[in-house]
Amino acid sequence: MRLGIVGCGLIGQKRAAAASGHSVALVTDLDTGRAEALSAKTGAQLAPDWQTLVAADLDAVIVATTHGSLAAIARAALEGGKHVLVEKPAGMTVAEVQGVAEAARASGKLCKVGFNHRFHPAIWKAKEMVDSGAVGAMMFVRGRYGHGGRLGMEKEWRAIPELSGGGELIDQGSHLIDLSRWFMGDLELAFAATPTLFWDMKVDDNCFLALKNSAGNIAWLHASWSEWKNMFSLEIYGRDGKLVIEGLGGSYGPETLTFHKMLPQMGPPETTMWDFAGPDVSWQAEFADFVRAIETGGRASGDIEDALAMHKIIAAAYRESAS
Amino acid sequence: MRLGIVGCGLIGQKRAAAASGHSVALVTDLDTGRAEALSAKTGAQLAPDWQTLVAADLDAVIVATTHGSLAAIARAALEGGKHVLVEKPAGMTVAEVQGVAEAARASGKLCKVGFNHRFHPAIWKAKEMVDSGAVGAMMFVRGRYGHGGRLGMEKEWRAIPELSGGGELIDQGSHLIDLSRWFMGDLELAFAATPTLFWDMKVDDNCFLALKNSAGNIAWLHASWSEWKNMFSLEIYGRDGKLVIEGLGGSYGPETLTFHKMLPQMGPPETTMWDFAGPDVSWQAEFADFVRAIETGGRASGDIEDALAMHKIIAAAYRESAS
Amino acid sequence: MRLGIVGCGLIGQKRAAAASGHSVALVTDLDTGRAEALSAKTGAQLAPDWQTLVAADLDAVIVATTHGSLAAIARAALEGGKHVLVEKPAGMTVAEVQGVAEAARASGKLCKVGFNHRFHPAIWKAKEMVDSGAVGAMMFVRGRYGHGGRLGMEKEWRAIPELSGGGELIDQGSHLIDLSRWFMGDLELAFAATPTLFWDMKVDDNCFLALKNSAGNIAWLHASWSEWKNMFSLEIYGRDGKLVIEGLGGSYGPETLTFHKMLPQMGPPETTMWDFAGPDVSWQAEFADFVRAIETGGRASGDIEDALAMHKIIAAAYRESAS
Amino acid sequence: MRLGIVGCGLIGQKRAAAASGHSVALVTDLDTGRAEALSAKTGAQLAPDWQTLVAADLDAVIVATTHGSLAAIARAALEGGKHVLVEKPAGMTVAEVQGVAEAARASGKLCKVGFNHRFHPAIWKAKEMVDSGAVGAMMFVRGRYGHGGRLGMEKEWRAIPELSGGGELIDQGSHLIDLSRWFMGDLELAFAATPTLFWDMKVDDNCFLALKNSAGNIAWLHASWSEWKNMFSLEIYGRDGKLVIEGLGGSYGPETLTFHKMLPQMGPPETTMWDFAGPDVSWQAEFADFVRAIETGGRASGDIEDALAMHKIIAAAYRESAS
Repeated sequence: MRLGIVGCGLIGQKRAAAASGHSVALVTDLDTGRAEALSAKTGAQLAPDWQTLVAADLDAVIVATTHGSLAAIARAALEGGKHVLVEKPAGMTVAEVQGVAEAARASGKLCKVGFNHRFHPAIWKAKEMVDSGAVGAMMFVRGRYGHGGRLGMEKEWRAIPELSGGGELIDQGSHLIDLSRWFMGDLELAFAATPTLFWDMKVDDNCFLALKNSAGNIAWLHASWSEWKNMFSLEIYGRDGKLVIEGLGGSYGPETLTFHKMLPQMGPPETTMWDFAGPDVSWQAEFADFVRAIETGGRASGDIEDALAMHKIIAAAYRESAS
Repeated sequence: MRLGIVGCGLIGQKRAAAASGHSVALVTDLDTGRAEALSAKTGAQLAPDWQTLVAADLDAVIVATTHGSLAAIARAALEGGKHVLVEKPAGMTVAEVQGVAEAARASGKLCKVGFNHRFHPAIWKAKEMVDSGAVGAMMFVRGRYGHGGRLGMEKEWRAIPELSGGGELIDQGSHLIDLSRWFMGDLELAFAATPTLFWDMKVDDNCFLALKNSAGNIAWLHASWSEWKNMFSLEIYGRDGKLVIEGLGGSYGPETLTFHKMLPQMGPPETTMWDFAGPDVSWQAEFADFVRAIETGGRASGDIEDALAMHKIIAAAYRESAS
Repeated sequence: MRLGIVGCGLIGQKRAAAASGHSVALVTDLDTGRAEALSAKTGAQLAPDWQTLVAADLDAVIVATTHGSLAAIARAALEGGKHVLVEKPAGMTVAEVQGVAEAARASGKLCKVGFNHRFHPAIWKAKEMVDSGAVGAMMFVRGRYGHGGRLGMEKEWRAIPELSGGGELIDQGSHLIDLSRWFMGDLELAFAATPTLFWDMKVDDNCFLALKNSAGNIAWLHASWSEWKNMFSLEIYGRDGKLVIEGLGGSYGPETLTFHKMLPQMGPPETTMWDFAGPDVSWQAEFADFVRAIETGGRASGDIEDALAMHKIIAAAYRESAS
Repeated sequence: MRLGIVGCGLIGQKRAAAASGHSVALVTDLDTGRAEALSAKTGAQLAPDWQTLVAADLDAVIVATTHGSLAAIARAALEGGKHVLVEKPAGMTVAEVQGVAEAARASGKLCKVGFNHRFHPAIWKAKEMVDSGAVGAMMFVRGRYGHGGRLGMEKEWRAIPELSGGGELIDQGSHLIDLSRWFMGDLELAFAATPTLFWDMKVDDNCFLALKNSAGNIAWLHASWSEWKNMFSLEIYGRDGKLVIEGLGGSYGPETLTFHKMLPQMGPPETTMWDFAGPDVSWQAEFADFVRAIETGGRASGDIEDALAMHKIIAAAYRESAS
């Protein structure tokens, strides 16, 4: 495929590196230096602005900008007949994301969203095990995700509502929501608290969420910017066992998956653990899923419809907290 | 002190063993064999029934029966002018426990409730550290407590509402509520779900609770009878660090306390961990607290007023779940 | 089978419990009370002494006495035409064990030795994996085994050379030697130090052993009675990966097996861990192996020839340390 | 101080960064590009060769070259009247290092050797605890140090005897020897095996060492280039407790120190663990020790006399293995 990349920061560079076997033909960034650096690395030509890029002769466009412009660029690219891979959260509001989703439906092009946590090997393997029936019918998930904090965090763009669309709920909380939906299907909000407990900022720094579906499954989620030590934990409970994912590599600790399988006699379960210590291959896996979906005409794992459902939960959470 | 014990099962025996230095003078149990066994072990005389026991010449009465009779016996003992140590939850309803609390106030006698988790060494040390300011002002706690399940659990007395007063909420959930109140002060219910997800029983087997206070502190709690592997985890977050308690010994895993202390430069915290591998001394410590409170005329750590506050939260949780 | 048991202490009782499906016909013990208790439990008749027992109409004899009489009883039972399951170390000296081995060869009866560590599920599974080629050709093993110590340990029978035949080398060290031979085949002593570092006793309280074979494989072993916290660790290295066994359950910590599998690109290995948290089934498994070997006419896993080879290493170690 | 640096590779750069507050005045490297890069970073001038550098007007010289030239440069710098910080192992043979030690004695200048493991915070704290009597009189240490291996390792300079002076014994084994001497004082070789078990190379890829002193203390050490997963573990046993250091950060896992303190009643020890998750500060701490020693005229922690003692053990080990 001939690819265009809008946004040449850290994520744009990772996307380019993960697209090996395809041609990065065109790149652009408000920061010309960054665009030039990625051009030098990939051999891509420079586009003067994203409007030019999305109108060019490309098969697919990767949108890796800050939250505020994701939706507009993705929508224009779809309307220009390109497949799109847009970073999470794909927009700042339900309305924005709805617009992108409608553009995707109208164009018949794929709009994948960068829910890259799905492609972490421990999480992906957990999903395969759930789908194969390893833990039986789902009961509930517990998710804990947190950042340990760093000096000046309250002044970063994520803390400024106009640039981010929200705080920790939209940052790490969105991943927990997406993963809960992936493991349990459609969910709606049962409870939310999105307080600002520590940082002097205008967005939430903690979000506590209870989601549920009609089958009585519950997702019990907490994400925090005052976790004091980076952590990721997702515990998935079925009638026949549980799967526990801990860590995401790097400062989030070794990524492991533990399977506790209930035995007929109950008592201590049979426990198996896998340690995924290798380099982060989630970006390659995610891009491969994008390509697969385009080639087969199927859905991508994590697309604009998933992002829309997630945004509806986020909006409901902010409404509930404000009331 | 001259002690009487009503209920000579496992807990009554542990209470007797923990009261060394005092005289177990009188014991009774509906199961005469159990009463005789404890009598043989302690040298206590047998009382024909609890009514006789609470009227006898005793300084204090330990009430270690099943949930349904805890309140009536405790109340009668207080009215008989005895100090009382009654097992958690001290009664099945707010009204019952209110009656006991009023009897305690009227009699001027102490009514301690067996919230023995407070006296586990990791939890006790955590409380001392919080009180000494080690983690700064409180922000929130997360609690997870679960039983791995055993065959036939759905037929045990805890699963029968008339005998237990409720399911997992009143069993392990009550400990999480009490500990949250201990660390953060008075709390009220913000959200509850008390579903029956796995077991074929008429009580809840899972409870998800959000509690909060006017300062914005949150207790985010989940207790489960379908945890598949026994677990206890309490995470306590202040503005300057966090304390993590894992395990309760035995099948709940080694009891440890980990202190993550934030540094001025933020980034990775300074981490210290204590491992409490020795024998369970919580029963001795709890009895010592009972004696101390009697001698000093102060409150016990975990008394009937705490039980009453806990029951109000439990009642609110069942109401919310039913609505 | 009709079984006789000589020695009705803790181990004799475990052996009886593990022999379900067979008939414990006759038991004896110098301590008549213990013999009567086991008789009551199993329905066995009492023999006045071991000489009578080994001469009776039995298929097999279990010898679970202290070290000093193991060899004499085992030998007599074999000469009486019985299969024998004798506790480790099967005798106190090479000469004693050689005598038993010769009696076994002469009688054509099986003489299994209670190397029960082989039958711990993590260790057994590790052996199966090694045999299936999971880690490739063996390179070396590292073993660490230690007891945390208890008051008065220096006065127990294990500390008295006449009763034990040696100290920590013959106690926990013998297991490490047997396991090393099991995983790597015949080995000879390359180095030994058997100091008495902590306890005021006439036997070694620590043993440091290097064993090797002609292929250059090395077993690097340390067992200690001054380990301060009970521990068991066996690390098994092949050309394609390593297997790590930690814990033996109970106070030795959860029993786990971890497999680190080297990948063609090297770097971090693929890691899988199994947690064996259930009740100790090693005694049942070991007895089943005894029965299997009798029925098939094959060797038991851990027999008198293995014990003889182990004793030759122990004797060499004591000689080297003394020189 | 005015510093000169010979060798501008990774280690030389780290040494320069750790010397803040002092002036890096002169640098040199056989690879001119590397020298220029470090010059640009530090403002240092370029010396055409090390002979020129050691003769210049400097207070101290850092020698961070490959093993083969360490001794010659260090010796010349000392003879030129400079203090010296030379990387471990400070030379390839006893004779070389003896020459450096004599030059240091003759010049009255300090010759510190880069045994930087001493300055890892977990190890440093362990030493302070031992010195303060926390574990009582020393009994033994166990050390395990290993590299997981990487493709082509057998062709790297460390595998070529002429460049390295030896294999894993001189690479990671030397750290274990130095740390053992640091904790227990002078030691001599009791046993060594230095086989080449996995890699197709002319040096040892594993070393098994037993060291001892006249008090009966033992250091039981194994270092391996076929460890399959990077690991570092040092266990230090005194009569009153043990200290366990695990990890060195990064791919060696989180650096932790665990203290098991024996209680008078024995049984499970009191356990405290410290987690050192922060950035690696060992280089700064080591340089500060260099400065302190120069200013006070005392010995540095890890100097040329320590390196000489270590080389005598290494030489003895290679002799024993060859015999």
